[in-house]
Amino acid sequence: MNSSDSRQLTTPAPSPHDYVGTPALATPAQVIVDVLGAPEPQLCDPAEPMIFADDLAAVRGDGVFETLMLRNGEVHNLQRHATRFVTSAAMLDLGEPDLDRWLAATELAAEAFGASVGAPEAALRWVYSRGRESTGQATGWVTVAPIAADVLTARQSGVKVMTAERGFRIDLSERSPWALIGAKTLSYAANMAALRYAKAHGLQDVIFVSDEGHVLEGPTSSVVVLRDNTLVTPPIEAGVLPGTTQAALFRVAEEQGWETAYEVLSVQDLIESDGVWLVSSVRVQARVTELDGHEMPRAECADEIEQMMWEAVAH
Amino acid sequence: MNSSDSRQLTTPAPSPHDYVGTPALATPAQVIVDVLGAPEPQLCDPAEPMIFADDLAAVRGDGVFETLMLRNGEVHNLQRHATRFVTSAAMLDLGEPDLDRWLAATELAAEAFGASVGAPEAALRWVYSRGRESTGQATGWVTVAPIAADVLTARQSGVKVMTAERGFRIDLSERSPWALIGAKTLSYAANMAALRYAKAHGLQDVIFVSDEGHVLEGPTSSVVVLRDNTLVTPPIEAGVLPGTTQAALFRVAEEQGWETAYEVLSVQDLIESDGVWLVSSVRVQARVTELDGHEMPRAECADEIEQMMWEAVAH
Repeated sequence: MNSSDSRQLTTPAPSPHDYVGTPALATPAQVIVDVLGAPEPQLCDPAEPMIFADDLAAVRGDGVFETLMLRNGEVHNLQRHATRFVTSAAMLDLGEPDLDRWLAATELAAEAFGASVGAPEAALRWVYSRGRESTGQATGWVTVAPIAADVLTARQSGVKVMTAERGFRIDLSERSPWALIGAKTLSYAANMAALRYAKAHGLQDVIFVSDEGHVLEGPTSSVVVLRDNTLVTPPIEAGVLPGTTQAALFRVAEEQGWETAYEVLSVQDLIESDGVWLVSSVRVQARVTELDGHEMPRAECADEIEQMMWEAVAH
Repeated sequence: MNSSDSRQLTTPAPSPHDYVGTPALATPAQVIVDVLGAPEPQLCDPAEPMIFADDLAAVRGDGVFETLMLRNGEVHNLQRHATRFVTSAAMLDLGEPDLDRWLAATELAAEAFGASVGAPEAALRWVYSRGRESTGQATGWVTVAPIAADVLTARQSGVKVMTAERGFRIDLSERSPWALIGAKTLSYAANMAALRYAKAHGLQDVIFVSDEGHVLEGPTSSVVVLRDNTLVTPPIEAGVLPGTTQAALFRVAEEQGWETAYEVLSVQDLIESDGVWLVSSVRVQARVTELDGHEMPRAECADEIEQMMWEAVAH
């Protein structure tokens, strides 16, 4: 309540990320496209605000999103993201997204990012909100920003991980559609809190586990386990998001003669496996090097597995 | 993906609310104060956007809020809201809010609302976000908007309610601080979905119940039960938000010779009680007239109970 408290909130905090391929920036290297606010998607000045104070995305986390990898000007795994985006929107009773419009916005954003920032890799995000509380008008926007340096580190060196109880019942999604399990909503505060908790304990990531001890997913990733010659991931019915990168990986792996399976997994299954990876669109893959304090040695075939992960997101 | 889909998203939807005391408005009757973006809180044009596209409130629901009642120019139950706001912020590892600053912003917003919109009752909201992803700069704002007509209806006629499994374990908050149980975060998508589900089934509100069958809270309210001469509410340890209106009510009730208690309650306890109310800051009270299809007759002393609820929020 004194003036030093006041300064605490008004002095700009240090940037949380060092961006790859760009210097530290006072004005962030971003591209913003407004998708729904005009007859056609249009570029916005990233130095200006674009969301109203009563937008339900900002005051209720009431909307859905996707994060896509933009690499050398190309968006990857687009169809799977689009499918999940439409499914998430339906689960929240949002109007069906006009995909042509979102794809036009994506193209516009990717071109503008190439022309202005030009980093080789970026995270391209679709955000679709229920819109303004006062008007009922839906809002949607696309952002592109360079990827954070810790993403590169995780790809190269892997991540130390803790398991964390998520606290949802495994059968909640069937009985309780309002829990929105399987929808990629903007209400990610608990996911972000779990990541902060891990980082505060010297770790880099989290794997959520159900009440029953079943492995679920990371806060922003799917869990893929190597067991002999089989890649295994928890089934959707466990209460996880359908993973776009995991799905693309499984297709590539099957083409290359690996087995794939959707199976209920315990934490012990992970510890005894031949390898565990967290896979997601922008980071692509981060091998788990330590799980709840157990060292997870790198399997001989890890290079081959990770190569498949990169192939999976290359188109 | 044809042009009619496109129009679906760009044509303004009808306003979701008729506001009390103001005509239907194309530009909403709002007041917006930016709390953290300048050396002092300042009024913003409500017709202009004020939040950046990468604000973590809007893309992750990563922040906290309070909704206060503004009645005839006065904000009610301020200290309890301020206390909970500080607690919520701490649970999310946000910087401690400078309350002097938030109170100055609140005063500015209330005065501007009185001068411009002038409705007798309004909802005044504090939103405190982790801020912009690209800069790490925290953001915060205060909005004031007239209350919706269905709030008046619920006060006068009560609400038909369904119970809904929330799916959290009752002891999750102790073992899993990342679940943020007890923090009033912006990640309210599931709460909003539960309310939509109820409304789609001809009801007006929801009471969440734990796995164990313990009564928790409404999506935007506390549950207060009348049993003989005692007012009962579930304990915080059940995994509910500390209710500001409930706390104020209990103080008034104790002064007037009623008993109060924090007790684990089952749905059957509610059905067999002498009355159930959903209490919250802006709606104040809505008596449950039907619970999971069971009619809940109005007790003789209901007028007295509701009178105490109004007294509780009068200062």
